[in-house]
Amino acid sequence: MITRRQTMIATAGLAAAAALPPGSTAEAAAPKRGERLPAVYRFALGELEVTLVHDGHARRPLDANYVRNAPLEEVRAALVEAFQPADAVLSPFTTVVVNTGAELVAIDAGNGDLGAPGTGLWRANLAAAGYRPDEIDVVIVSHFHGDHINGIRLKDGTPGFPNARLLVPEAEWAFWMDDGQMSRAPEAMQGAFRNVRRVFGPEAQKVERFSGERELVSGVTAVPAFGHTPGHHAFRLASGGQSLLVLSDAATKPELFVRRPDWQVMFDMDGPRAAETRKRLLDMLATERTMVAGYHFPFPAVGYIAREGSGYRFVPAFWT
Amino acid sequence: MITRRQTMIATAGLAAAAALPPGSTAEAAAPKRGERLPAVYRFALGELEVTLVHDGHARRPLDANYVRNAPLEEVRAALVEAFQPADAVLSPFTTVVVNTGAELVAIDAGNGDLGAPGTGLWRANLAAAGYRPDEIDVVIVSHFHGDHINGIRLKDGTPGFPNARLLVPEAEWAFWMDDGQMSRAPEAMQGAFRNVRRVFGPEAQKVERFSGERELVSGVTAVPAFGHTPGHHAFRLASGGQSLLVLSDAATKPELFVRRPDWQVMFDMDGPRAAETRKRLLDMLATERTMVAGYHFPFPAVGYIAREGSGYRFVPAFWT
Repeated sequence: MITRRQTMIATAGLAAAAALPPGSTAEAAAPKRGERLPAVYRFALGELEVTLVHDGHARRPLDANYVRNAPLEEVRAALVEAFQPADAVLSPFTTVVVNTGAELVAIDAGNGDLGAPGTGLWRANLAAAGYRPDEIDVVIVSHFHGDHINGIRLKDGTPGFPNARLLVPEAEWAFWMDDGQMSRAPEAMQGAFRNVRRVFGPEAQKVERFSGERELVSGVTAVPAFGHTPGHHAFRLASGGQSLLVLSDAATKPELFVRRPDWQVMFDMDGPRAAETRKRLLDMLATERTMVAGYHFPFPAVGYIAREGSGYRFVPAFWT
Repeated sequence: MITRRQTMIATAGLAAAAALPPGSTAEAAAPKRGERLPAVYRFALGELEVTLVHDGHARRPLDANYVRNAPLEEVRAALVEAFQPADAVLSPFTTVVVNTGAELVAIDAGNGDLGAPGTGLWRANLAAAGYRPDEIDVVIVSHFHGDHINGIRLKDGTPGFPNARLLVPEAEWAFWMDDGQMSRAPEAMQGAFRNVRRVFGPEAQKVERFSGERELVSGVTAVPAFGHTPGHHAFRLASGGQSLLVLSDAATKPELFVRRPDWQVMFDMDGPRAAETRKRLLDMLATERTMVAGYHFPFPAVGYIAREGSGYRFVPAFWT
């Protein structure tokens, strides 16, 4: 190190090189830490304490199927506009955990230990936020896609939240738990049907179902937002005059589906209805300037919706 | 809680209410954690390990002086466009810490224990990143405003980085340490001159000065960026074909001064020259699509510069 340092001093014109403290060059360099740092973010919304808990992100090659109704080149252009890879989709996962003062509530459960590479950070991040999974009193589920429910039951069958009530949309339950729907579904969807049974089957009797626009726990109201799946819900958090709409997957990756709300991601089960729901909610958010969270929004996944051109733009909240 | 819960069940139409697990309502709610969560972010840039360490943020009332050459109403409109308060400026502070493999390098030192309310989180966040202040081998200073140097010497006189070499811009040193400059400066600047002497005076002989576009430590090159102060510098990090420009205060709050690079913040000592430097660097960043960090950019303070209208827009990097 001394050699390199002397070289640097010789070439860099440092004015006070002769006055270096003795021994400073013998200092061992601190090793690179490398380990993953926590990705958690917390703020108060009235009386609610809201914590965003990151579960990592997945990367999938971009192909022509990803956006069902847009030319691949336009999708690539939107990714490049967002300074992201043109040939891949980076899909982050962030859940909302709410402490109502009376109950600790998780909205969606993350990928558990069954997600794509790059995911599965949820429990470590929950710990960084000061909570244990057995302290979660309630898990509210937006819809039954695996990245939202797999945290409820780990690969080995263990319940992810041993003390939690499970609240799920009635319409979602009715669709996915129906054997007739399963038998009529295409082969590509069979895995999703089986996974829903894997997650909920062992304790189906414990699952509570909700429907309509209802307050589920203090300050958290379910908002039907069908299309992405048959029973998909968003959630409105409200307390002390402040509010936050948890969009769930009403809009997935905002660089694509907030900018171009007409675009339909391949996971939108009823594409036109999903787009209609998305446009209605984005229009409301932009008009009311309400704070929003999105499950696939870039961490910390909270911000606002601004109008831009014929679409919208996600504006991250100021980090406090 | 049971009462509230029963009420909720009665009104919310939960389908499986009768099947709740015994005892679940007796669960004590987890207390709100309240405590501040870490605000640190890390990524690899070639062989460099880059860690963004947040020092909190200050809030000051917005007044007509804040932007020297824009009508107050236009400044307010820009803040509202960014979904921020219209009557206050939220000013975050985030430093760049680089592990070169051989040395642990801090670029700027944060507010130490002399900043505005809401600041002073740097040491706790450095610890969350796995480092101690005494492991910092080098502190490189962009310029001598207090929010960038106060971490070098705490209020009680203790050195903030007992084992670090201090590298500062020669032109900055020449200006602020000059007694003639101090005697000619307006009253409002006397505190800043005294503070520079407080920070560097006790170990002036240890301070190394640099000038010109020079590699200061492996992978970190000083880039003169005068105007904000007489000797203000940006820094280019480069390794393995990747690069990052640390803008320091060449652009402060991006919602104002990246969107409208002609605007001059009250802290720009030579306003026209600062604007000229800012526009040159932003134009380069937008053209090259190079990653950028800014000391007053919203945490984690790294991203990209996109052209928008007659100005630019800061696009946060995807959190990985």
